[in-house]
Amino acid sequence: MFKKILIANRGEIALRVIRTAREMGVKTVVVYSQADEHSLPVLLADESVCVGPAASNASYLNIPNILSAAIMTGAEAIHPGYGFMAENPDFAEMCRDHGIVFIGPTPESMRALGSKAGGREIAANSNVPVVPGTGVLEGVEEALLAAKGVGYPVLLKASAGGGGRGQKVVRTQEELKSAFGQAQEEARLYFGDPAIIMEKFLEEFRHVEVQVMGDGQGHVIHIGERDCSIQRRNQKLIEEAPSNLPATLRQEILDAGVRLAQHVNYAGAGTLEFIVDRDGNYYFMEMNTRIQVEHCVSEMISGLDFVRLQLQIAAGEGLSLQQEDIELRGHAIECRLNAEDPDKDFRPAAGKVDEVHFAGGPGVRVDSHVYSGYIIPPHYDSLIGKLIVHHDTREQAIARMKRALEETVIQGPKTTIPLYVKIMDNPFYKRGAVMTNFLKTRMEM
Amino acid sequence: MFKKILIANRGEIALRVIRTAREMGVKTVVVYSQADEHSLPVLLADESVCVGPAASNASYLNIPNILSAAIMTGAEAIHPGYGFMAENPDFAEMCRDHGIVFIGPTPESMRALGSKAGGREIAANSNVPVVPGTGVLEGVEEALLAAKGVGYPVLLKASAGGGGRGQKVVRTQEELKSAFGQAQEEARLYFGDPAIIMEKFLEEFRHVEVQVMGDGQGHVIHIGERDCSIQRRNQKLIEEAPSNLPATLRQEILDAGVRLAQHVNYAGAGTLEFIVDRDGNYYFMEMNTRIQVEHCVSEMISGLDFVRLQLQIAAGEGLSLQQEDIELRGHAIECRLNAEDPDKDFRPAAGKVDEVHFAGGPGVRVDSHVYSGYIIPPHYDSLIGKLIVHHDTREQAIARMKRALEETVIQGPKTTIPLYVKIMDNPFYKRGAVMTNFLKTRMEM
Repeated sequence: MFKKILIANRGEIALRVIRTAREMGVKTVVVYSQADEHSLPVLLADESVCVGPAASNASYLNIPNILSAAIMTGAEAIHPGYGFMAENPDFAEMCRDHGIVFIGPTPESMRALGSKAGGREIAANSNVPVVPGTGVLEGVEEALLAAKGVGYPVLLKASAGGGGRGQKVVRTQEELKSAFGQAQEEARLYFGDPAIIMEKFLEEFRHVEVQVMGDGQGHVIHIGERDCSIQRRNQKLIEEAPSNLPATLRQEILDAGVRLAQHVNYAGAGTLEFIVDRDGNYYFMEMNTRIQVEHCVSEMISGLDFVRLQLQIAAGEGLSLQQEDIELRGHAIECRLNAEDPDKDFRPAAGKVDEVHFAGGPGVRVDSHVYSGYIIPPHYDSLIGKLIVHHDTREQAIARMKRALEETVIQGPKTTIPLYVKIMDNPFYKRGAVMTNFLKTRMEM
Repeated sequence: MFKKILIANRGEIALRVIRTAREMGVKTVVVYSQADEHSLPVLLADESVCVGPAASNASYLNIPNILSAAIMTGAEAIHPGYGFMAENPDFAEMCRDHGIVFIGPTPESMRALGSKAGGREIAANSNVPVVPGTGVLEGVEEALLAAKGVGYPVLLKASAGGGGRGQKVVRTQEELKSAFGQAQEEARLYFGDPAIIMEKFLEEFRHVEVQVMGDGQGHVIHIGERDCSIQRRNQKLIEEAPSNLPATLRQEILDAGVRLAQHVNYAGAGTLEFIVDRDGNYYFMEMNTRIQVEHCVSEMISGLDFVRLQLQIAAGEGLSLQQEDIELRGHAIECRLNAEDPDKDFRPAAGKVDEVHFAGGPGVRVDSHVYSGYIIPPHYDSLIGKLIVHHDTREQAIARMKRALEETVIQGPKTTIPLYVKIMDNPFYKRGAVMTNFLKTRMEM
């Protein structure tokens, strides 16, 4: 096992990695921006290195500084968390070139899977259904032609995009004409790559994703699936495991996920995102080649520590778990605690957290880097923690989540907690009839 | 199920009961003393009733006021927690007389098991070994004669005692002559009953206890056992489940616990305390006819909610779990967070908790009624919370506990946390070689 690793991230996921590393006796170096000097990961890591000013581009995305920090501190491996450098194959390659282990898949599989166009191709080759759609579209003429085949409404997506950003719904030819160039421009701006693909836009679907672990030697297992349909602006708010799908459909999707990951000889933790329509058709969307924010719900039902598995695989210890070792128990739900005002279109609410008091008791897990007096920097995303519960049944898990939300006190910024309390009481949510348009159609938001 | 219950307790156990009740949709009334007006249970319960001034005798032990509060608020049942009224058969009987369900066993089984003398007799009748010793001793002459048979050193115990209090080690005839009357006097003072029994004093032993649940109709299951050998002044500090006993011995003790509980047709949650010597001899000590402080470790490895089971049994829903349904998984450890100075003989440290920040992340559970700014009243015990961890193996659970202890910040009073960090590093503790004299013999305290 590694003696020392560097964590190239911040916030709750940096803390998450520190926790497992400490338990494994692995020393940690955390990098931080000037805005995160007083953050909990910096306080809890064995070492910390400031890699730049607040702006992510200058710090958490600053490859030379991060690599220098790793070399300087003698870290043998880098855990990228999620976001930032987590799905950057160039970074992974540079790590390799410098003799530092990147805790994640190879740059090659990241490249193959990293674009939506590439993902679609791999899916097709591994006999996994994808939403009717196209590869990269060269220009608006090709897009107009493709849309005729796919059928309106269509979705334009940045091929290099992720996390629900860089997507545009287009309902008519006219709209497509103006939207296409704009989509390319935005894709270039946000993801450094103007490539756009088109997919059939589905109005109502569930977001279901399969958690896999691979050893990079062809051995891949799944650790169940998650339903992440409760979203705002294509970003997840509430996730649960297992999903509420019928057993056969569920097994088909799990098998499809494993098949695809095996096809690319996947190494480490990965997630295959699917959408499932009302008729039970499922389509592969993309693979996230990293740990997910919502990995905790799968940890709760499996009893496994995914960061530990990541470290073991990256350190060459392999993946001794077989599919039959995975025993899923009960139901888990996660609410992302965001410093946002849900009544004002989820406007971010940075600033000081005067007082924080998290829920406790049976079946409650809190992953948060926030403490009383912590100042939320305005430079990064609004996630200030995750509240995760586990119970025997979905119904009981919902009751536990409501109880835990009501115990949680965050004084200072507005948070999404009051919204979640309402969702836990919502009859559609309670009966599991949840599509990604839930907030708009079932909560009047 | 009950619509409303009253909780006749305070602190973390009151909060524990509120949590499960909320999840079950059962309304809660909590009683409190004037010193606990600003406590978390009072803030979180649906209703609260002040039953007297700070002194326990006038509030938490004030039977007329507590019964009045239950009647006034329309509570159908009373959960006594642990301590205070939890093992008072007279209170249980008065509840019954007033048509209020006492959430616990019948007054009859409490009476039969409540005294150490009675417990020894029941054990003998159910073929469960007890430490060589006596029934209630009438006077010093009888004690001197008995000691000859039992063999010095002997232990004098208040028959009505509990929680490790009211015990005296006597090593010679001379000592016994002066100690016996003193023991009677103390027993009268502390427990309202001068009855004294004698047992062979064992220098080194483990404290192992069996968790049972019974339906009062002859159906009794066990939910594993706990090792609670790390104690100070006969009071538990650290507990774990399962114990580190060889499989056959472990099963024998579990069977003995179930046999004894079945013999008294036990209803509800109960714990049978055993001591186990170096040679693997085990002896029944006493049964605690209530939920224990350390029930959480058993919840963690079983995935069960013991308060829910208590409520279901008390409400007449029975105990549908069979022994084969109980599946224990992994290893759990609990550290009792006491506001005490371990370097000054565990002197209680009441006062203001300026700041509290509990550990989080995978496999960590926190049960605490303390919040930042909370003032620990000096009138009650020093338990301010419990930190519980769960992992696959004992070794991993120890590493997780150390990590969680190091994350925990309690500013203000001295606590037992620094001691626990040292224990997690102790080689004897790590290899599970722990007897109740651990702190004295292995930690130089």
